[in-house]
Amino acid sequence: MEIRLIIIGDELLSGQIADKNGQYLGKFLHKKGIELKNIKIVGDHEVDLTSAFKGFDGKITLVCGGLGPTHDDKTKKVMASFFNLEILESDACSEIVEKNYSRRGVSWDPDSNFYHHIPKSVTPLNNPSGLAPGLALIKDDFAFICLPGVPIEFNTMLEEVVFPLLEKSFKLGNKDLGRINIKTFGIPEESIFHKNKTLWQDLSMFGKVASLPHALGVDIEISRIDLNKHPNFSEKIKDLLGPLKENVWQYGDNPLEERVIDLAREKNLMIGLAESCTGGLISHRLTNVDGCSSHFLGSIVSYADEVKRDILAVKEETLNSYGAVSLEIAREMAIGAADKLKADITVSVTGIAGPAGGSEEKPVGTVAIGYCYQGESGSELLNLRGNRKNLKYLFSQKALFTLFFLLRDGRL
Amino acid sequence: MEIRLIIIGDELLSGQIADKNGQYLGKFLHKKGIELKNIKIVGDHEVDLTSAFKGFDGKITLVCGGLGPTHDDKTKKVMASFFNLEILESDACSEIVEKNYSRRGVSWDPDSNFYHHIPKSVTPLNNPSGLAPGLALIKDDFAFICLPGVPIEFNTMLEEVVFPLLEKSFKLGNKDLGRINIKTFGIPEESIFHKNKTLWQDLSMFGKVASLPHALGVDIEISRIDLNKHPNFSEKIKDLLGPLKENVWQYGDNPLEERVIDLAREKNLMIGLAESCTGGLISHRLTNVDGCSSHFLGSIVSYADEVKRDILAVKEETLNSYGAVSLEIAREMAIGAADKLKADITVSVTGIAGPAGGSEEKPVGTVAIGYCYQGESGSELLNLRGNRKNLKYLFSQKALFTLFFLLRDGRL
Repeated sequence: MEIRLIIIGDELLSGQIADKNGQYLGKFLHKKGIELKNIKIVGDHEVDLTSAFKGFDGKITLVCGGLGPTHDDKTKKVMASFFNLEILESDACSEIVEKNYSRRGVSWDPDSNFYHHIPKSVTPLNNPSGLAPGLALIKDDFAFICLPGVPIEFNTMLEEVVFPLLEKSFKLGNKDLGRINIKTFGIPEESIFHKNKTLWQDLSMFGKVASLPHALGVDIEISRIDLNKHPNFSEKIKDLLGPLKENVWQYGDNPLEERVIDLAREKNLMIGLAESCTGGLISHRLTNVDGCSSHFLGSIVSYADEVKRDILAVKEETLNSYGAVSLEIAREMAIGAADKLKADITVSVTGIAGPAGGSEEKPVGTVAIGYCYQGESGSELLNLRGNRKNLKYLFSQKALFTLFFLLRDGRL
Repeated sequence: MEIRLIIIGDELLSGQIADKNGQYLGKFLHKKGIELKNIKIVGDHEVDLTSAFKGFDGKITLVCGGLGPTHDDKTKKVMASFFNLEILESDACSEIVEKNYSRRGVSWDPDSNFYHHIPKSVTPLNNPSGLAPGLALIKDDFAFICLPGVPIEFNTMLEEVVFPLLEKSFKLGNKDLGRINIKTFGIPEESIFHKNKTLWQDLSMFGKVASLPHALGVDIEISRIDLNKHPNFSEKIKDLLGPLKENVWQYGDNPLEERVIDLAREKNLMIGLAESCTGGLISHRLTNVDGCSSHFLGSIVSYADEVKRDILAVKEETLNSYGAVSLEIAREMAIGAADKLKADITVSVTGIAGPAGGSEEKPVGTVAIGYCYQGESGSELLNLRGNRKNLKYLFSQKALFTLFFLLRDGRL
């Protein structure tokens, strides 16, 4: 079964905000073996909505956005005219809305939003995290379901209300299909497939192969694997990847920060950080992992040199001789963090994320990454490309790889 | 002039990665007064691409993704068959590819990727940040341009190659249209428009009104303002918003973290942070702002209680009496950060982002936010809803609002 998604909002097309619902839905369905066939993002105008509705021929269509109380929320109106349904007061809908308001401890004034006026023969859906109800039109051969665009409301409704409803009416998932994702580091995309000329073909025996290069590393995904034909696909694919063993850091989809916390858990170690140019991003990423607190102590974000000196005990003379972005300072930062945070393993980052601050000798993108582990310390200097935000991310990614390989192999 | 975007990639529909190019393009065009009409995201299959190409009737269509060297990259092939063009070797294209390889210090083996085989009468476009060239088919009445999907390559090509090319061939922008965004905090969407019954109508006199609620605050956007009819729209709209003056924190589109750095610059103050549950996110957001280093010292990310005690000098007895998530600890953290970082103003956050760690008394979503400014310190406790990542973001947003209002009004 395929599902299609229409997302409504001028603010997504003008770039004011980034859509989050598409990725959330994709991930949610993918795990269940259901395909998200396509996503269409359109503006708030009635004519945009109508043309988006017309273009969709799938059995199951989800629409998100445009269900709020203000005049730019047109979804209900367009849904009614598209399916030629009258808009009427609904008691079932009033009941949902009243309950949602009272949960928030406020009383509902029906005239302030007309949430309870909905197209005839449409089922109102509860919104456990918000106020505006969803709207579902379900027939024998199709479902057309409108949901709010606020991510927390969309997510909760999807999991608690919409998916159970769809499961009742349609044969949704294909549980006979497998999938594996191979994440590599330190080898370019071309080398993977050019030096291993039959690899793509060999992997294609199992299913659909896709290669996805990132700035640091390449992912190879094999999907739509027939489990009846390939019951042990995972072992066989790992055998094929044997020559790349050193480069593969994961068979799976977990974020790098989660793999780092996993390894720290296996070795029962506490991680600490000293960050300058990444400004807390590495720490932010590690603390996105549930349960990280048993293996993460904290980070000294020493953006100013005075903080490097006063808190991390970096030497004034090292700062003066080599500058803040140097192998020497990175190493002293890692040692200082290990000492002050009482950490078993630390990584430090000091670099130039731009746009200002670069020089001919040390251009924007220069970064020094230090570590301190098992009584040893060291650092490396490298140069990456990108704008400020890209560079912060790449620096954080490289620092997490440093933690990963130190924890996995005991060396870099 | 309207532009349409087609984004290609199974990895976007399976939720493996989030699209970044759509928002980037939207923002880029919006600033120039050009409309991004819609975005369609489709999978890697030839049939998906063909049907996406068919659906697009606009004058200018950009396609991103599927130009790489591997077998799942189908864009070139589908473009050729869709426009009925033969694929031929192109010397102009070879030249571009050779230059890109040599810039990276590697030599190009044409057999490894066939980058130089392109559809006839298509112009190859330079890719200043990558290897795969773009492909442009430009006629009198339409343009169809394929670009790589890697964000840094897409962005650089858009700015340096594609936009200048389009500007030469088409009348693009409408410089006679204005727009204003009003960002509020502390008043719900319904109250804004229900208590000010004519506000929506009054604002609609200027252009298209849209209301966009966030978990903390509501944005009101007025776009498509005819500058000939309303030369002083900005002043008049500010007058209409007079009754909401206290709630408006910005007329514009800058991120909150940028407004905070702006205010610190105006007052010539240095900011410091003490973060627990936000794990460095507030510091990460502040350091996303260009030039923040003149007004941001750093953050003590004290995830473990020992770090709160050892580095921030939070009292052991306060931890024992009140627990780490409390008004008292938040206050001590803010004072400790001011002292250790030698900061003029500090904000601290300690809370429960979940999924574990909540109790009946202090459920997941509980957060204490402290501050220390001009010799005064204080804290407040609140409860928000969401999953771990949402909560970290909301906590950081609330902490940045605390900094903002302290800096703007000298009080909360």
